[in-house]
Amino acid sequence: MVLPDTTEDTQGSGLASVNPDLASERLTASFCVPRLTAVLDGGAERTRLRRAVVDVIESDPVFSRENQYFQSQNERYEAAVRKAVHVRKKMQEMGWSEDGPESVYIYRALSGDVAFLLHRVFMRSISVLGSDKQVAKWIPPATEYQLIGSYAQTELGHGTYLQGLETTAVFDISTQEFILNTPTISAMKWWPGDMGRSATHTVVFAQLYIHGKCYGVHPFIVQIRSRQDHSLCPGVIAGDIGPKMNFEHIDNGYLMLKNVRIPRENMLNKFCEVQPDGTYIRRGSQKINYFTMTSVRISLISDEVILPLMKACTIAIRYSVVRRQSKLKPGEEEAKILDYQTQQEKLLPQLAAAYAFHFINNYLHELFNRGYREIQGRNFDSLPELHAFSSGFKAMVTQYCTSGLEICLRACGGHGYSLLSGLPSLYTKILASCIYEGENTILLLQTARFLIKCFTAASAGQPVPPSVTYLAAMKPGKCPAKDKLDFLSPDIYTEAYQHAAIRLISSTAAKLQDLIQSGVERHEAWNQCTVQLVQAAKAHCHYITVKNFVETVEKLENTAGIQNIMKHLCDLFALHGIFSNAGIFLHDGYITGAQMDMVTASYLDLLGIIRKDAVPLVDAFDFTDKNLNSALGSYDGQVYQRLYDWARKAPTNKQISPAYEKYLKPLLHNKLSKL
Amino acid sequence: MVLPDTTEDTQGSGLASVNPDLASERLTASFCVPRLTAVLDGGAERTRLRRAVVDVIESDPVFSRENQYFQSQNERYEAAVRKAVHVRKKMQEMGWSEDGPESVYIYRALSGDVAFLLHRVFMRSISVLGSDKQVAKWIPPATEYQLIGSYAQTELGHGTYLQGLETTAVFDISTQEFILNTPTISAMKWWPGDMGRSATHTVVFAQLYIHGKCYGVHPFIVQIRSRQDHSLCPGVIAGDIGPKMNFEHIDNGYLMLKNVRIPRENMLNKFCEVQPDGTYIRRGSQKINYFTMTSVRISLISDEVILPLMKACTIAIRYSVVRRQSKLKPGEEEAKILDYQTQQEKLLPQLAAAYAFHFINNYLHELFNRGYREIQGRNFDSLPELHAFSSGFKAMVTQYCTSGLEICLRACGGHGYSLLSGLPSLYTKILASCIYEGENTILLLQTARFLIKCFTAASAGQPVPPSVTYLAAMKPGKCPAKDKLDFLSPDIYTEAYQHAAIRLISSTAAKLQDLIQSGVERHEAWNQCTVQLVQAAKAHCHYITVKNFVETVEKLENTAGIQNIMKHLCDLFALHGIFSNAGIFLHDGYITGAQMDMVTASYLDLLGIIRKDAVPLVDAFDFTDKNLNSALGSYDGQVYQRLYDWARKAPTNKQISPAYEKYLKPLLHNKLSKL
Repeated sequence: MVLPDTTEDTQGSGLASVNPDLASERLTASFCVPRLTAVLDGGAERTRLRRAVVDVIESDPVFSRENQYFQSQNERYEAAVRKAVHVRKKMQEMGWSEDGPESVYIYRALSGDVAFLLHRVFMRSISVLGSDKQVAKWIPPATEYQLIGSYAQTELGHGTYLQGLETTAVFDISTQEFILNTPTISAMKWWPGDMGRSATHTVVFAQLYIHGKCYGVHPFIVQIRSRQDHSLCPGVIAGDIGPKMNFEHIDNGYLMLKNVRIPRENMLNKFCEVQPDGTYIRRGSQKINYFTMTSVRISLISDEVILPLMKACTIAIRYSVVRRQSKLKPGEEEAKILDYQTQQEKLLPQLAAAYAFHFINNYLHELFNRGYREIQGRNFDSLPELHAFSSGFKAMVTQYCTSGLEICLRACGGHGYSLLSGLPSLYTKILASCIYEGENTILLLQTARFLIKCFTAASAGQPVPPSVTYLAAMKPGKCPAKDKLDFLSPDIYTEAYQHAAIRLISSTAAKLQDLIQSGVERHEAWNQCTVQLVQAAKAHCHYITVKNFVETVEKLENTAGIQNIMKHLCDLFALHGIFSNAGIFLHDGYITGAQMDMVTASYLDLLGIIRKDAVPLVDAFDFTDKNLNSALGSYDGQVYQRLYDWARKAPTNKQISPAYEKYLKPLLHNKLSKL
Repeated sequence: MVLPDTTEDTQGSGLASVNPDLASERLTASFCVPRLTAVLDGGAERTRLRRAVVDVIESDPVFSRENQYFQSQNERYEAAVRKAVHVRKKMQEMGWSEDGPESVYIYRALSGDVAFLLHRVFMRSISVLGSDKQVAKWIPPATEYQLIGSYAQTELGHGTYLQGLETTAVFDISTQEFILNTPTISAMKWWPGDMGRSATHTVVFAQLYIHGKCYGVHPFIVQIRSRQDHSLCPGVIAGDIGPKMNFEHIDNGYLMLKNVRIPRENMLNKFCEVQPDGTYIRRGSQKINYFTMTSVRISLISDEVILPLMKACTIAIRYSVVRRQSKLKPGEEEAKILDYQTQQEKLLPQLAAAYAFHFINNYLHELFNRGYREIQGRNFDSLPELHAFSSGFKAMVTQYCTSGLEICLRACGGHGYSLLSGLPSLYTKILASCIYEGENTILLLQTARFLIKCFTAASAGQPVPPSVTYLAAMKPGKCPAKDKLDFLSPDIYTEAYQHAAIRLISSTAAKLQDLIQSGVERHEAWNQCTVQLVQAAKAHCHYITVKNFVETVEKLENTAGIQNIMKHLCDLFALHGIFSNAGIFLHDGYITGAQMDMVTASYLDLLGIIRKDAVPLVDAFDFTDKNLNSALGSYDGQVYQRLYDWARKAPTNKQISPAYEKYLKPLLHNKLSKL
């Protein structure tokens, strides 16, 4: 299953030859690049499938992103709708099904610039929360886009705290309808994608009232626009919420409802029902809602967070061996900027993190699939762990990747700041991942709550879920490392991470206990500990990520240089974390100042080692030029020519600005004399 | 000189009343807000002047930024040109001169969205580098916009390393002209503002050749467009470099020159001259060039970096007392998000930093003005210190404020991500400050070079400049703090910062020495130390900033609660720095783990204290609503109403998208049946 030792065949480029500075980087790889690509894909078979899908998508001009950086919000929206409609046609043509293996690669190939993702959430929520009858009624037409759905949960004044939603749905027995209303401006639905201009229907979350009694938040299917002429339905006010930092292709919308009536059958009623006489019935477990959120959170990490960081690393690292600036050695030619230690220290830890997160994401998916199987067998035991896990990792990975992407952007200097580099769009998009699907601080505090609970249980000798059994193993101890090479031992650094996580969790648990015992009310004590609880949750997630990277490397094939280079990256990821968070490890003397100097020495040595393989390591991510859409990051490294070629296409170069005639000419012609 | 205890009069708002949650925050200020505003302005007289300028600018509809978030690149460029032309007219009308006291407030009032800043750099470079004759010829028409200038230094392949510029200027004795050429694509001028579409002239930096010998980089005035019809001059290829992350209002441009001839008189020749026979003469000191760069770096920090952070703090803090989400205490109403410790920990350190940087900026300006007076007396002694200072501070302040602004943006959740919050534009603009006028890593390494030199001198008992005399005072010692209150003593924390800075500088100097003595070549040894050199330079700048904040607070008036609240902010800035960089202080045991717990406790206590004054502290920045241009940050806190009002104005809501007719209708009408 050895692939040819080149990735050139998938790298389309309009320019003739590869920049020699970049080409030379590929001659000295210490490992086989296609083998690593296959490892990342989960097998060479998957690589072939992925490439086939990417080929189909990229060879179709409808899916081109060539003009993306020059488009207005309107144009991007229109293109995204066109792509959404076209992709369905394409899938039918190719015989690809929604649950087929190809479907996971379509979105990657499109690079996310496609509409109707919320339409899919609309469908998913009906599938999960709707009765069989509701599924049978709504899913077939939705599948064929005979209606466009959205998902209206967030309100202008209400995000994370769902119980605070203000939209009301009052049951009217006389007509067997729910009457939906937006009682205040803060109750307006705000942010739902596909709702500002596209959707004909949406799932609205509203407080259910029957006979004046509130039964809490429930989901209702509401038609908001005519399928006939797309005009707003009576009582509906809806529109676009205006420009955002990115997602210009999505029509995030607002929605106000004034006495909008929907039939009783439109409340999604798999788990609860309002009977004709107004009797409210709840059935089944509510925990499954929990699981849906968890699944969304896990599913977005790969495409929306890790892939963008991988792309940014590819762009920044390729550019950093083409860009020459200043001299490392007097008398020599200007140096590749990646040969400067400071540039390595910016980029290579991000590269190591991209690999670390790819592997922890695989682990999360395994955990999720196991949990899913258990749930199907009506066993909900793993839900709290899975929820804590997915929350903490969503927060850690989005935060880390967002920072990493910003570092990549800035490491490319001025050119990184040009949209044509591809980096600004990646950044402004990934930043949103820190906010959506659960704000990160709140998610980390949920993980912390789980950890404190488990720590208390473990301390009392009670059983705890597998991922936190380490909390029972608190020993004072000191790091046994004697020289810098000891810090290349996974046992040494994994134990350091474990120790730090336990210390932070236990000391915060102790502070919490002290406060409560000194008479502070429980909720206030919790609030006073939250800064430290967030730290503790991060330390836990960091520890688990390092541990998983170590275990992954141990299991990798020991040929083609794969295990070797991954061991270096794993070491780098671990030591970068200790170097950058030194205080956590030095605090109780587990690591001494002298040992921290060893960490630093080993860390800086690793930068020099991984530097040699930096380009092959990003080549292994196997992005096509079209997928990167970057003048700096193309496979051939023809950076300057491409920047120039693309800049010339800018619409600002295709017209004389009216500003000349209107404002400049009168001035310039004033006393026109020879200068 | 007591101002009325309200800032309401300058806060125009279309909405009727102040949100009660925000209003209540203003009733309990522990200090007099207008007095603090006057302190920040440098006196109540300055406040009045600033407000007068702001009033004039903001009451003129030409300067409105109302539609800014909805404008295309073309529209923003056109508006910026219009404003640049109009502002000149306005100044004439008002009798404001270029060097008058009003002029510093005009740019602030415009919020930077104005063209022809590079035109001013063009003029400044002629004033500084040109002969009296050149100044007499070019400055008057430039002042009247009879020509539009730009400043073409950076090339596509060359930024920080000026010696590497490739553009050539060959002296042709026979015609007494210079012939300018762009020999390669990487030699193309790239990025100069005002050059893509506006400029008729530019100062081009090129390698001067006479009789085949290269004399290095020199500045030449080159006409690039006709003043008659704005067409490109023969041999000139120029245009716009396309979209960027921000600065859409500026036409950053590219420029290629093909045998463009200019007369001998167009080389700026105050400091060097090519005589008619080709003799090259250098006169005066080149160090003055150095000083120009320093002055640009210092001048941008206030308007481009500190003000944006102040604006972001104003927006995020006001929003955080209007936004209520989730419950702090069961049974109570939802809490203001600023009452959560984690939200305080995000925003209040940024607020403290904004004050810290405002004061260090004042200090820098004093230092600069003193240096300027010395230089006028032909004394260049203070230049190295001033250069090291301005480089390090530009890097530290831009980095800190950029991160701080991102934190403010994210702390506003989803709404912070809307352009209407004002935060995305502030962020994408401030980010550029980390790159332009010297890339931050390179600047920090220049500061580090100065510090290592001074440390070596101080160790040898030689005299060093005033700001680094502390380097001679290395004593091993331990922090004497006994409880958390001790860490509110400026002596305690200032000494900790001083100790950390000395330790990092001395240990890196020692590593450098060791490497060189072990046979590593000097340039390679330097490269191997650069990650640590950057750390050392940051620690030095951080120390000086803390020390300056402490000294500023000591000198403040002891009335109206001013000194008291500033002391809290100073403590917060200092302790946040120790808390966030714990490793640096723990490394050699200067601060122990137990003491770090005291730091943490005092730091968290301070958050609660400053929380009470958070809104008055941002009110004191005295931004008008128009200046903030934020739906979240207005003085009246009518957040939700304003978001809705502004969103409705979005152009996407003013037309039916062609996407409906083209792509959606055919699908929706397919088997149109009742659902």
